[in-house]
Amino acid sequence: MPEKFLMTPPIDRSDNIIKNHLFRRQFSLKHLKKKVDDEVVEDLPLKTHIVIIFSEKCKQSTCEDVEKVIQEHGLNTELEILSKTEKFLYVSATTETLLKLADEHGLTKKTVTGTMQRFNRYSVNTFLVGDMTEDDLVINSEAPRLIKDTIKPSLMSYFRNGSIEDFFPLHDIDYLNKFTFKVQRKLPIEDIRNYFGSSIGLYFGFLESYTNALVIPTIFGFLQYYFDFSLVTVCAFYMIWTTVFLELWKRRCSTFSYRWGTIEMTSLDKPRAAYYGDLKPDPITGKMIPHYPMKYTYMQMYLVSYPVVFLCAIASMYFAIYQFQIEAEVLHDFGPDSKLLYVPVIVQSVLIAIFSWAYEKLATFLTVTENHRTRCQYDRHRVNKLIIFEIVNNFFSLFYIAFILCDLKQLKYQLMMQLIIFQLVCIAQEIGIPLMAVIRQKITKYMHTEMDEEQRSNVKDINRYEQSFFEGGLDKYTSTYEDYLQICIQFGYVVLFAAVAPFASLGALINNICAIYIDLFKLCNIFKRPFARRAKNIGAWQSGFEVLSVIAVVSNCGLLYMQDEVRETVGKKFPTMPALTFIIFEHLLLVIKFILHKAIHERPRSIRVAQLIDEHETHQALKHLKSLTAVRKNK
Amino acid sequence: MPEKFLMTPPIDRSDNIIKNHLFRRQFSLKHLKKKVDDEVVEDLPLKTHIVIIFSEKCKQSTCEDVEKVIQEHGLNTELEILSKTEKFLYVSATTETLLKLADEHGLTKKTVTGTMQRFNRYSVNTFLVGDMTEDDLVINSEAPRLIKDTIKPSLMSYFRNGSIEDFFPLHDIDYLNKFTFKVQRKLPIEDIRNYFGSSIGLYFGFLESYTNALVIPTIFGFLQYYFDFSLVTVCAFYMIWTTVFLELWKRRCSTFSYRWGTIEMTSLDKPRAAYYGDLKPDPITGKMIPHYPMKYTYMQMYLVSYPVVFLCAIASMYFAIYQFQIEAEVLHDFGPDSKLLYVPVIVQSVLIAIFSWAYEKLATFLTVTENHRTRCQYDRHRVNKLIIFEIVNNFFSLFYIAFILCDLKQLKYQLMMQLIIFQLVCIAQEIGIPLMAVIRQKITKYMHTEMDEEQRSNVKDINRYEQSFFEGGLDKYTSTYEDYLQICIQFGYVVLFAAVAPFASLGALINNICAIYIDLFKLCNIFKRPFARRAKNIGAWQSGFEVLSVIAVVSNCGLLYMQDEVRETVGKKFPTMPALTFIIFEHLLLVIKFILHKAIHERPRSIRVAQLIDEHETHQALKHLKSLTAVRKNK
Repeated sequence: MPEKFLMTPPIDRSDNIIKNHLFRRQFSLKHLKKKVDDEVVEDLPLKTHIVIIFSEKCKQSTCEDVEKVIQEHGLNTELEILSKTEKFLYVSATTETLLKLADEHGLTKKTVTGTMQRFNRYSVNTFLVGDMTEDDLVINSEAPRLIKDTIKPSLMSYFRNGSIEDFFPLHDIDYLNKFTFKVQRKLPIEDIRNYFGSSIGLYFGFLESYTNALVIPTIFGFLQYYFDFSLVTVCAFYMIWTTVFLELWKRRCSTFSYRWGTIEMTSLDKPRAAYYGDLKPDPITGKMIPHYPMKYTYMQMYLVSYPVVFLCAIASMYFAIYQFQIEAEVLHDFGPDSKLLYVPVIVQSVLIAIFSWAYEKLATFLTVTENHRTRCQYDRHRVNKLIIFEIVNNFFSLFYIAFILCDLKQLKYQLMMQLIIFQLVCIAQEIGIPLMAVIRQKITKYMHTEMDEEQRSNVKDINRYEQSFFEGGLDKYTSTYEDYLQICIQFGYVVLFAAVAPFASLGALINNICAIYIDLFKLCNIFKRPFARRAKNIGAWQSGFEVLSVIAVVSNCGLLYMQDEVRETVGKKFPTMPALTFIIFEHLLLVIKFILHKAIHERPRSIRVAQLIDEHETHQALKHLKSLTAVRKNK
Repeated sequence: MPEKFLMTPPIDRSDNIIKNHLFRRQFSLKHLKKKVDDEVVEDLPLKTHIVIIFSEKCKQSTCEDVEKVIQEHGLNTELEILSKTEKFLYVSATTETLLKLADEHGLTKKTVTGTMQRFNRYSVNTFLVGDMTEDDLVINSEAPRLIKDTIKPSLMSYFRNGSIEDFFPLHDIDYLNKFTFKVQRKLPIEDIRNYFGSSIGLYFGFLESYTNALVIPTIFGFLQYYFDFSLVTVCAFYMIWTTVFLELWKRRCSTFSYRWGTIEMTSLDKPRAAYYGDLKPDPITGKMIPHYPMKYTYMQMYLVSYPVVFLCAIASMYFAIYQFQIEAEVLHDFGPDSKLLYVPVIVQSVLIAIFSWAYEKLATFLTVTENHRTRCQYDRHRVNKLIIFEIVNNFFSLFYIAFILCDLKQLKYQLMMQLIIFQLVCIAQEIGIPLMAVIRQKITKYMHTEMDEEQRSNVKDINRYEQSFFEGGLDKYTSTYEDYLQICIQFGYVVLFAAVAPFASLGALINNICAIYIDLFKLCNIFKRPFARRAKNIGAWQSGFEVLSVIAVVSNCGLLYMQDEVRETVGKKFPTMPALTFIIFEHLLLVIKFILHKAIHERPRSIRVAQLIDEHETHQALKHLKSLTAVRKNK
């Protein structure tokens, strides 16, 4: 075995992303070949689902304690202590154990009759659709998640005292091939969900829908520019487009979440690990779980968090206004050609960056103290706070220029500048983050002392060791927050001032096409594999986009009114109430928006029918079994 | 037996409401006495649930055919042919049959564990809470409904050819005592639901909530009048009050519908009797039911119905504007003292009445052609059409005066006039309808030839015969439409121009307190007992009230801007944009309204927990039974 790896020692493989990619390809080919070579493998070793890396200070006895704790849950473990810095614990599970966990966690799976039912380990056959085997029932992303949910609560003390340094699922290198650029033509959303979980699956689903939808305003933008549409048309068009797009996405989203078995998730599901409170029996399942009074959460939210958020938003507004004043003063004192004009802009940019960073910490802190029960709730409330601030931060100065200074020319200039800077930052982030990762790995390389041949021979499964070591050095994927935020702000630039920026959607379209592939590449190559997160929708982002689409109606109508020629024409026609016409027009658009919103049902009929079929089947099965029991008793 | 009735022959008892009331009391006392007298009644006859009255032209053979059809469903019948005009068929059901029907129709009932589960006749014991017996499981209002749903489809041909003249459940005179004025202090909503069904139960629930909620604006109205609040306060107050009231009602409504087992109703439930289409197997239950493509319904709705509705609404607006012009012309030609001034008002009132009546027919016709599947959907879409028109009809002229003519003085005058007329009409209806019923019954009396002694002795159960005969002469209760419409328009008067009409809510409060008891009295005494209708909420009326509460924000802010002094003050402070301040204020109120709407959850947490417990119990039961089956198989 060891000879195979002599030419390329393991450490080299982690030194940069390109080599890593090559390594993976090689590995995968080798693996494939091996499979073909000895087709009848009697005793295939269990697949390692999770790797636990212990910290340097952790003693061997502690490692063994952890192993015992995990084994108590019926999981298989393998402890490998190579040196002081390299202590790995590999966690795996037999199919039987996984099925038991799937049953306990109430996963929803498709049955042979085509309905979605909660998985039941006593009737496994019902869930074996087509040529599935029992091994395929718990999919790639679910196994690590199930194991994590099972063992994490008992390991909390080891996390807290720092014995466990890292805890992550291993990448499945065969599966990753599905995401290489060449193979795919359409975005493989089902595979992404199977591999990364439904939360990331929905992100890509949304990004794809949004990118496709952007084609329409791009074409409209060209027409608007060449044929010089009236602004009334532009307002109406964007109102309809944003509303229909967001409603259709909701329908598509529910199709996904139905198929993925997450549509029935509620805020009363199993609490997240960090949720604290008195241990009480859960009213639903009767298990002992922490219980934190809702009133404290609400008090914290409405009396502390949101007031703070609004203060920050107002502070941000004042800051923007103050900047305009300083700029005006500098212009007045030093004239328009002075290089001093750049000073306030630069100072402000730096301050905004610091302010944003501090605000994110603050929002996270506030949301943590609110102590939401589920991960989805936590994310939603955190994102809510961040969106409010980001919208103010990004768009307030534009509103100020448009409606308080009433300066359309400066608005166009400022909008263009902001848009260009925003796109540049996006590109920089998308290329910069991989670059940073490479540099980091270089440093890791120097820090790492090479392993000698003797140790190498101690390693049981050299591939697994290498993969664990390499992936342990990768960055942790935190959440989809940054990615969604980028699309959300971009959406704002596309719709809020569409009346004066017809080509914003073209830029967004190009940017998004690249973003899809870069995001997927980053997930596969520069981050540790994330634990799958279940999600039934895109959470607070749906509201974020909806809020922007409502503001867009107001702002575009405002822009319409700002146009001098329009104001004059209307003023002549209706001399008593030029503003009234605009108010009526704006309210009319909002009413139509609301009607569209109501008329398009959140879930397609087929999904609603399917849900009722599922429910009916459950009740019929129950009735049937009960009648059998009744007959038996009577006998 | 017959001697008892000699003093007061049966016909007399139906001649007016007061006597009817006395008759019922007597009957009830007698009944009670009888019960006490012979406590151990071995062979109590089955309670008659439904009476079918055949038309004069219907032959005896047809009557017997109908009887056979009904018997085929496992129901008990009794045919009584007394004369050509008096052919009664009494339908009743044994407890066993009722339980079977309850199971088939999937009624939701409370179990001993406190959860709500679909009724299952194989585990009846699970549903016997407290000291309930099997007879109590199917409640008073459900039995006639279950029987109707079972037999009506097979009787459709007899209804169509006019053989069956009438088809109604009999009043339960013992139960009606619960609704007499003396006994009750709080509105007995649970009893109303048990007796009249959940649709009427929710109506009374809503009316009660609304009446209680009206106390707050009544007090506010006094304060507003005496302390001369600023209109900004008034706008904000009504925004908060309407939103909170409507949201809290939604929560209360879901508490009711959960307890009543209707919360899970969907648009895919059993179709109503008049639904037509190709017979196809239902995707959910697999039973053969009519199936009408949704696309035709949508096409009819969006291409025909709503355009027609909007044309009618616009016509109504033009009509209102035209009236103002005529009035102005009359004023101009004949001077302000001329009696001719009344002519256009009278002509218009008559025309509006005719127009309204025609429009209701039109809306019903349009909704029928849309062919909605369930009764709830049908009602919702019919009410939607009617609300749009009624809102325009009642309030457009006020808006025209306020915002186009900008005449606050005339607005106040017109508002007061309309409000007084509206209240008078309400009172007239509430007293008039009972009066009409009395006159009608008088006429019936003259038409009816007295029954001779011989015939009388043929009658098996004289009480039942008398009750059937008497109730056959009562009016049919159509729907809660008229009652809801009255509250809805009243709500409009209270909130839309609250800024200039501080005492409207006082009038509404007084009116509603009377309305609750009059409505209940009417239901018990002057109408045939209606078949219970299942409902999970108040349907289109919720949206109707919500729309009015949004319009109220806009109109009150408009009124605020119309005030001369306010306009001047703001104009001095912000000379560049007086209107902008108002637009921002109005949008701010709308945003707060929206946030309140989102922050208050539609269903109380307890109900959501309870629903999840129910679901969990179902799945656990299924799992348990399946594991038992699995064990048995392995053995």
